[in-house]
Amino acid sequence: MAEHPSYELLYHPAIPGRGEFVRLAFEAAGVPVTDIANSEKDGYSEVQKICANKDIESSDGNPPIFSPPALRVPGKGRDGKALVISQTPNILLYLGDKLGLVPDDEAGKLYVNQLTLTALDLANEIHDSHHPIGVMLYYEDQKTEALRKAKDVRENRFPKFFSYFSRVLEHNERNGGGGKYMVGDKLTYADTTVWQVLDGVSFAFPKELEARRKEFPLLFDTFYENLKQEKGLKEYIKSARRLPFSQGLFRYYDELDRQ
Amino acid sequence: MAEHPSYELLYHPAIPGRGEFVRLAFEAAGVPVTDIANSEKDGYSEVQKICANKDIESSDGNPPIFSPPALRVPGKGRDGKALVISQTPNILLYLGDKLGLVPDDEAGKLYVNQLTLTALDLANEIHDSHHPIGVMLYYEDQKTEALRKAKDVRENRFPKFFSYFSRVLEHNERNGGGGKYMVGDKLTYADTTVWQVLDGVSFAFPKELEARRKEFPLLFDTFYENLKQEKGLKEYIKSARRLPFSQGLFRYYDELDRQ
Repeated sequence: MAEHPSYELLYHPAIPGRGEFVRLAFEAAGVPVTDIANSEKDGYSEVQKICANKDIESSDGNPPIFSPPALRVPGKGRDGKALVISQTPNILLYLGDKLGLVPDDEAGKLYVNQLTLTALDLANEIHDSHHPIGVMLYYEDQKTEALRKAKDVRENRFPKFFSYFSRVLEHNERNGGGGKYMVGDKLTYADTTVWQVLDGVSFAFPKELEARRKEFPLLFDTFYENLKQEKGLKEYIKSARRLPFSQGLFRYYDELDRQ
Repeated sequence: MAEHPSYELLYHPAIPGRGEFVRLAFEAAGVPVTDIANSEKDGYSEVQKICANKDIESSDGNPPIFSPPALRVPGKGRDGKALVISQTPNILLYLGDKLGLVPDDEAGKLYVNQLTLTALDLANEIHDSHHPIGVMLYYEDQKTEALRKAKDVRENRFPKFFSYFSRVLEHNERNGGGGKYMVGDKLTYADTTVWQVLDGVSFAFPKELEARRKEFPLLFDTFYENLKQEKGLKEYIKSARRLPFSQGLFRYYDELDRQ
């Protein structure tokens, strides 16, 4: 077993949100991470002090952070201080090698990053389906626009993204990966990230997904179901430790779903 | 001088768009890239065949591509075939080391990727200010929503992003970089990417920018102006080779600008 440093996730408390993409990587690898806002008294104050300040450094000599999630790794920054990095795909890129969640070859690592960025693009579009105008406005104050945006996301974007990820799986199946994984023949953070977005879709748009899932059996029947059986993830997904979806990145509003 | 393989950019013709973030990296490094759609007869057919097909592979054994831009590097993929990768920040990540556009240390490389992802997030929000509902709809068919979205982007998002990038520069200034660069003391692809987004803002929202730029002198007077003097970029930015903004990622509609 490799020795791991102590890893700290800096994110909002109580919601899965973008922090969940990072949590899933740790769970899949069986490596511990301290979720500061959810595990320490005044933890969220600490997160805000580092991630949501207007200072010219986040902490420990690292540049400022635009918004959470961030990852702090004591001892791994410059001059023996903590490394503090942000942007979900950047955190996953950093962790990929260290947690054993990428293939060994350069091309494989690039595909994993490519798929992760694409899955996170879909997550952004889903976010915008309930917040098309502004992140600081209430849903109720942009509901008219949300109804129209969500219709476009459901009718045009879901088929495009689902077709894409299905073809990636089919490509991998033909190249020896068995269609179980997005890249190569073992789990990568592209798998956990795509999976979490699909799980978010199943929460936010249950009727739409029910109507569409049979068009994409490799994605929903094989890939999505298989991931729930992966070591580490199997226990976590069923556990009370996994935060339920609520009012975060993925939200359920009946009127935005297929009618 | 390092030996470089032949690099090929696969993107739409005639617009800067997301391809420009990749072009700027090559121009800054003084390394040639063939822009297939803009330089070859039937070049765009070739781009579409690789980037916009519904096949299960893009080409040369690489997985499918969700959308352009993509980068093709003959001989650098598996089994001596071409490597074909997509997603703008993924292409830049690949090129960073190869073109000498990242610092040597891991923390520095991660900061460059972090800032690039944040600049591209701003580019996405600017895109959504003219296309808040759907990419396949005309602007005129989502103009009502665009007016409201653009107002939010101008009033709330620009100050947040400009403040962030200014603080990054200030952080770097205090740590020896002189405030000329985002990370370290020489040009990285974070600089070219942030610069291109700011240049896009100056095209799409000239009145808004004129009103705000004096609040952020380090960003607009120092960083933005200095980059135009960088070797390689200086000549390119003034040249006819640089495609003008038009109806792409950054668009000018007077009614979306500050009134």
